[in-house]
Amino acid sequence: MVVNPYTIFAEIIAGTAEASRVHEDETAVAFMDIRPLTSGHVLVVPRQQFRTLEELPPEIGAHLFVVGQKVAAAVRASNPRVAGVNFFLADGTVAGQEIFHVHLHVIPRMIGDGFGLRARPSSPQRSELDRQATEIAAALTRS
Amino acid sequence: MVVNPYTIFAEIIAGTAEASRVHEDETAVAFMDIRPLTSGHVLVVPRQQFRTLEELPPEIGAHLFVVGQKVAAAVRASNPRVAGVNFFLADGTVAGQEIFHVHLHVIPRMIGDGFGLRARPSSPQRSELDRQATEIAAALTRS
Repeated sequence: MVVNPYTIFAEIIAGTAEASRVHEDETAVAFMDIRPLTSGHVLVVPRQQFRTLEELPPEIGAHLFVVGQKVAAAVRASNPRVAGVNFFLADGTVAGQEIFHVHLHVIPRMIGDGFGLRARPSSPQRSELDRQATEIAAALTRS
Repeated sequence: MVVNPYTIFAEIIAGTAEASRVHEDETAVAFMDIRPLTSGHVLVVPRQQFRTLEELPPEIGAHLFVVGQKVAAAVRASNPRVAGVNFFLADGTVAGQEIFHVHLHVIPRMIGDGFGLRARPSSPQRSELDRQATEIAAALTRS
């Protein structure tokens, strides 16, 4: 795996590419998504490039969430139509990750905005859920 | 707003309702979603009930993300079909929140799992993105 391939976020963070910024601190920046899923869609991005959740130091992940909470409150405060917010994060190509620089989506929600999840929820037996939980818990213990 | 309405999560956390648990610590618990959007879908839930992102103390939000990262790694490690992960959080009814006890979804992703976002992305003018960013930044400064 290439450690530091180019992404547009590096240029935005360096200030050499255009972005509509809403927040900056020592660890992260936040700016408007140029292909918003709903109006007011913001990305929260660590200054340093970590490609995936696995590479992302937990203290920086924690910071992304905290900035996301602040941005969520500000998005609600700045637009009375915003009645809710989704956080979304894609880790891996199969999960829809397109830019390999971890980023948290803050997606404002308004009635009739057309955004949602596409999914086929299932109802597994408790025995199957227990089996999965045992495997995941075992993997957590090994990590 | 009712401060502590009933949710099933309170009973799961108290141990009086069934759940397939994968992680517990002083601040949060994680267990299998009984209506998984994909196989292995886990919820990360603070022990204390906070209804919304606004009520959620940032240090607890930060912890949810960190536990989410650990669970994401464990879900990948426990199932070789899992090639990615989505984090999802719904804040507010319009955002799809059903249980008013903040929770982070950790959604394993596999090829052909049928999960995705339903959205109509737009391409606003830079002037419009700048206008939104200015308003959100102003709200951040006030908070």
